[in-house]
Amino acid sequence: MDTPDFDHYPTARRVVGVTLEALGLTAHWDDGARTAHHTLWLRENATDRATTHPETREQALQLVDIPADLQILSASASEAGGLVTRFSDGLEALYHPGWLRAYAQETQEAPFALAPRRLWSGENLPDLPRFPAAAFAADEAVFEAWCEALHILGFAILEGLETTPGTVARIAQRLGPLRESNFGRIFDVRTATEQTSNAYTAMALPVHADLCTREHMPGLQFLHCLENTTVGGATRLTDGFQLAETLRQEDPEAFHTLSTAPLLFANKAEDSDYRWEAPLIGLDARGALLELRFSPWLRGPLSTDLQTTDRIYRALRALFSRAEAPGAFLRFTLKAGDLLAFDNARLLHGREAFDGTIGARWLQGCYGAREELHSLLRMQRRVRRRG
Amino acid sequence: MDTPDFDHYPTARRVVGVTLEALGLTAHWDDGARTAHHTLWLRENATDRATTHPETREQALQLVDIPADLQILSASASEAGGLVTRFSDGLEALYHPGWLRAYAQETQEAPFALAPRRLWSGENLPDLPRFPAAAFAADEAVFEAWCEALHILGFAILEGLETTPGTVARIAQRLGPLRESNFGRIFDVRTATEQTSNAYTAMALPVHADLCTREHMPGLQFLHCLENTTVGGATRLTDGFQLAETLRQEDPEAFHTLSTAPLLFANKAEDSDYRWEAPLIGLDARGALLELRFSPWLRGPLSTDLQTTDRIYRALRALFSRAEAPGAFLRFTLKAGDLLAFDNARLLHGREAFDGTIGARWLQGCYGAREELHSLLRMQRRVRRRG
Repeated sequence: MDTPDFDHYPTARRVVGVTLEALGLTAHWDDGARTAHHTLWLRENATDRATTHPETREQALQLVDIPADLQILSASASEAGGLVTRFSDGLEALYHPGWLRAYAQETQEAPFALAPRRLWSGENLPDLPRFPAAAFAADEAVFEAWCEALHILGFAILEGLETTPGTVARIAQRLGPLRESNFGRIFDVRTATEQTSNAYTAMALPVHADLCTREHMPGLQFLHCLENTTVGGATRLTDGFQLAETLRQEDPEAFHTLSTAPLLFANKAEDSDYRWEAPLIGLDARGALLELRFSPWLRGPLSTDLQTTDRIYRALRALFSRAEAPGAFLRFTLKAGDLLAFDNARLLHGREAFDGTIGARWLQGCYGAREELHSLLRMQRRVRRRG
Repeated sequence: MDTPDFDHYPTARRVVGVTLEALGLTAHWDDGARTAHHTLWLRENATDRATTHPETREQALQLVDIPADLQILSASASEAGGLVTRFSDGLEALYHPGWLRAYAQETQEAPFALAPRRLWSGENLPDLPRFPAAAFAADEAVFEAWCEALHILGFAILEGLETTPGTVARIAQRLGPLRESNFGRIFDVRTATEQTSNAYTAMALPVHADLCTREHMPGLQFLHCLENTTVGGATRLTDGFQLAETLRQEDPEAFHTLSTAPLLFANKAEDSDYRWEAPLIGLDARGALLELRFSPWLRGPLSTDLQTTDRIYRALRALFSRAEAPGAFLRFTLKAGDLLAFDNARLLHGREAFDGTIGARWLQGCYGAREELHSLLRMQRRVRRRG
């Protein structure tokens, strides 16, 4: 029996009965579960070729072309343990039981759901998720474990990589296309002559996220160490999502302010003018954390009244002071051949000051998109289900 | 007198007096305006080299390093017509009057503000903003007018372009980096043997936006016609922002549903699994339209109770039926050498069915980011202010 997409839906349970409802039907399952399905929901997810394109598996029938007064004439358990449903427009459709359970609100046995993130703080710092570059290249299982760590902990490290310039792009492209910016497809972090960004100085960089001044912050960042013989310059990493959840618990007013008040993020370049206005803490429609525009030094001036400005500064200080508290962060030094990948919309990264006159420090970086990582994680599991 | 950034702030007005307030100060201007400025706001936007990095113009002083009990000891009009302010931490700072008026809530004489968009519908369709490709290439003013149209109307057309494959990328890169996707840096829209998307068939495509299944929808889309000798296949364009504003007026319940209820957008490919859950209508923190995930055929199944599902289907039908109403859209046929650029998060584009057995139809497309267009528009005006 077909499903409307290309995924594979394990079938553990069977429909044993059906009750028609005003808005659709309720399926009764052999484990006692009941799942409700709307008439239009069933109709537009039918798998016949007039509803679902047989090659693209995309919807071929438009919602507006389904009669508004469509009714289910009859429905029952199918031989395969799913549903068979007859509609007033003449269609008889079969539904796969695994697919029904995947999307039903009551069961949501979704084989495509991502593993939950594991948030961490100074009190439960994770071991560094280090992976040898040779195994990453040769062994698909190591690559998959690296992807999982990147999603679950928000970062993952490769060790023993070659130090050829451009390597960072090759690694990042295993996940998907690069997210190019005005800094190029690849950017070089070293003390340059032209200091167009604080990153290109030897000064300390407080923990932050990159490109908060854009409409779309890049979801992934990759930093490859080609050379590091300076004194100082340790990397700091903080789980910004844990930091924000702590703020939500300890200072709900500050959390509310930072998740609702639009702030201006503005770059300060001579030859470009990127600006974006959004709350520092970005939430999805369910209130879950989506992204942090955590930018201590690329905030633009507020344009709010004195009381609102005061409230925002209090909230910013509550967040920033937690981020810089001793022990709030992981601290390690990147050595030549290390590559750090992390979720740029979740983790905050910083750098301690280094002596720009001794030795050399050269990182190459690039950006990618979380959606590529998420798709890859789902595909890895889909392939395993296929066996 | 310096400003904290690289912009140029026209100075028409002068500060004539200052009143200290509990949270900062009020400046009195020679046109009668009064502007309020918070103590920390003034302090962190000072232009001395310890506060603002002299080369990057980025913040060098962190907010958390400013004393929480900082006070303004004295403040007055400066000789240049701005402010001079002395703080309890010892700093004396000068503020440029044009910069103060740019960011003050009461004046907001912001030289960097983008021109307002001009929304359109079937009742006030705009003339097609067509520009000759030769003038676009040779004349900076024509390029700027094309950029303005793309922002204000949401689309702009080039005519008489060469039909060499790859040209679309060269044009798009005048605005900024391409947004690459799993369809490549450039994608080909023609009836391919492998039908991995409805776009690659000859069927009609209802108006829609591209890549609604991603965390970040591309803000700009470019379509270059290399060949069109088929019968049919006219392009349709609808201003989705006007459509949404009409819905907000005429059916506020449907607008509320579509701007708050998370919907699943899911691609249906065999070798990738992009999914994103978000309201169809994306609003910013002030309630203004940000993006439309207008995807008639890449919606995934809802996982909501029957009543909520019913409410969402009603709202979707209210929106989709308006989009497909006769006369709701611009309609024109792309000919070889035409290039259509449009805001993919605002405008909806569609294609009428064509006869796949007669002649050939070949478009090349690519994506970009609105942030690049916005930065460019601001820079064009900054350069004009410099004179």
